[in-house]
Amino acid sequence: MTEPRPTADSEALADELASRLEAGDRRALARAITLVESTRADHRRAALALVSRLYPKAGSAMRIGLSGTPGVGKSTFIESFGMMLVERGLKVAVLAVDPSSARTGGSILGDKTRMERLSRRPEAFIRPSPSRAELGGVARRTRETILLCEAAGFDVVLVETVGVGQSETMVADMTDIFALLLAPGGGDELQGVKRGIMEICDLILVNKADGDLRAAAERTRADYAGALRLMRRRPQDPEGFPKAMAVSALRADGLAEVWAEMTALFEWRRSAGVLEARRREQAVGWMWQEIRAGLFERFASSPRVSARMPGLEREVAEGRLPPEVAATAALDLFGAATPGG
Amino acid sequence: MTEPRPTADSEALADELASRLEAGDRRALARAITLVESTRADHRRAALALVSRLYPKAGSAMRIGLSGTPGVGKSTFIESFGMMLVERGLKVAVLAVDPSSARTGGSILGDKTRMERLSRRPEAFIRPSPSRAELGGVARRTRETILLCEAAGFDVVLVETVGVGQSETMVADMTDIFALLLAPGGGDELQGVKRGIMEICDLILVNKADGDLRAAAERTRADYAGALRLMRRRPQDPEGFPKAMAVSALRADGLAEVWAEMTALFEWRRSAGVLEARRREQAVGWMWQEIRAGLFERFASSPRVSARMPGLEREVAEGRLPPEVAATAALDLFGAATPGG
Repeated sequence: MTEPRPTADSEALADELASRLEAGDRRALARAITLVESTRADHRRAALALVSRLYPKAGSAMRIGLSGTPGVGKSTFIESFGMMLVERGLKVAVLAVDPSSARTGGSILGDKTRMERLSRRPEAFIRPSPSRAELGGVARRTRETILLCEAAGFDVVLVETVGVGQSETMVADMTDIFALLLAPGGGDELQGVKRGIMEICDLILVNKADGDLRAAAERTRADYAGALRLMRRRPQDPEGFPKAMAVSALRADGLAEVWAEMTALFEWRRSAGVLEARRREQAVGWMWQEIRAGLFERFASSPRVSARMPGLEREVAEGRLPPEVAATAALDLFGAATPGG
Repeated sequence: MTEPRPTADSEALADELASRLEAGDRRALARAITLVESTRADHRRAALALVSRLYPKAGSAMRIGLSGTPGVGKSTFIESFGMMLVERGLKVAVLAVDPSSARTGGSILGDKTRMERLSRRPEAFIRPSPSRAELGGVARRTRETILLCEAAGFDVVLVETVGVGQSETMVADMTDIFALLLAPGGGDELQGVKRGIMEICDLILVNKADGDLRAAAERTRADYAGALRLMRRRPQDPEGFPKAMAVSALRADGLAEVWAEMTALFEWRRSAGVLEARRREQAVGWMWQEIRAGLFERFASSPRVSARMPGLEREVAEGRLPPEVAATAALDLFGAATPGG
């Protein structure tokens, strides 16, 4: 027996949520997300049963990653861009991966306030960042939440993140298209962007191309376009990508063009088989990440380990025990305490 | 019993190597490093016994991290800088953490050839990057090798790395002082340096400040000095750090000044108690890294797991099994197969 064995209860819960969710019940979707975000063992069993049940229906949405530091107008962009999509008849889910909000316990009110019009639309669904202590944890559950949104019939799943640490890479690893939102800036601006992110970007969107900042936004766009030209084009992508564009989220200027580029890229990749190959690769990568995270979780929650760790940590901090020796001791303790052993 | 139990054999080997190594026997040092780099279970036991035995004697060296991409003159710098130190009566060990050489199986000949004068000096010890497939593995063993060098009486342990992926952070996490070596460049040069590395640098050394490149090196130095001034000074450091300097490794120009800055910073941190606090923090960090790496190693080497993983991976890649479900199945298999269970 290698598959996890759900209990009758968790099976029943998964069945009920799955059918309500597929029928488009928003409260069922919200409840399903809460279930996958829960760390309780019985919730986890039910969440896995639910994900297994919905998995064949998943994969239908365009998954868009969007990063931008505070102040670039990310909420305004998502509100305007999301409104445009729902007015075209698309169902849009917005998920947040924000490791900085994890510490403060999420920001439901904040997220709904900052996207007021969008949050009132029945075709839109906005979910704030789960309040988990660790970036890995935040991102892990977001991956499953994407699947839930797809099963619930959303056409576009937009995963937004702030540019903190590895959060951009993690979001890029769970989406099909990755866009970076920037504010107009002087010539020094290029420095401010981590080199790595240029390599994972499909679109660089310079916001605030309106009023006094219009010319500056265009200059910044041109700077980035130049920088992107210096980078090697990914062989699987069409001419002209990655691309830099200037937009005004406030006036909804350029958003139709952004959507046109996104759909063009998405369709190109889909017809070339690149989309499918990339999603498969991502899935295998998620599996390994889950294994690493799960190993550590099981280690940390082992009673024998948690009883001894503070002592080992102190001995290492005081220079009385080499770190490698302490680690081996802890691992040996875990070995003897593993469930099923 | 929480400490690993070495066998009589591994104890005897550790005893012998420890006393020869402390007496300054270079062949014993080389053999001890090979032992620490080995993945064989009996070697690992002996290595941990050896590290435990030498641990009280470790910590005496100044641990310097040095990063630089190929072409900036890193070997020439290490050769000139190392020669200056040995001529001042110091014993210098040079260790490499090079994830790119890991694939080709190390580069003993290469390292000795490129530091010809230094490698012939009895006061110097040059050890190439261990040939391990994975950066984590390379860095893990280098941490233990630093301790061996300290027990063998080396005054300065210089850990060099190329700027690939996380290698710089890993080296900074095992050293006291971190320097980045750069070549002179145009105004675009600042972009080329990953933002993160500016934050971990104590010294930025612009090399090749000689001949035609002298003026360019000075301009590049000034650019970096300006960029460093914009960064927040670490509260524990003296005025003026992090610092940018121009040097010529080829002519050994400016190397005495580099050493003077390094010793000044080192002594400041030591007398302020910052050095000790940082080393303690690093040791605790290593312990947790060892635990994570060790958990995965034990997982991957479990026969039950390795028998099932290719099948699970295929099912995930083909979209037949959600990654989270596959991961849970693999973790449950491991749970029942853990040694000691």
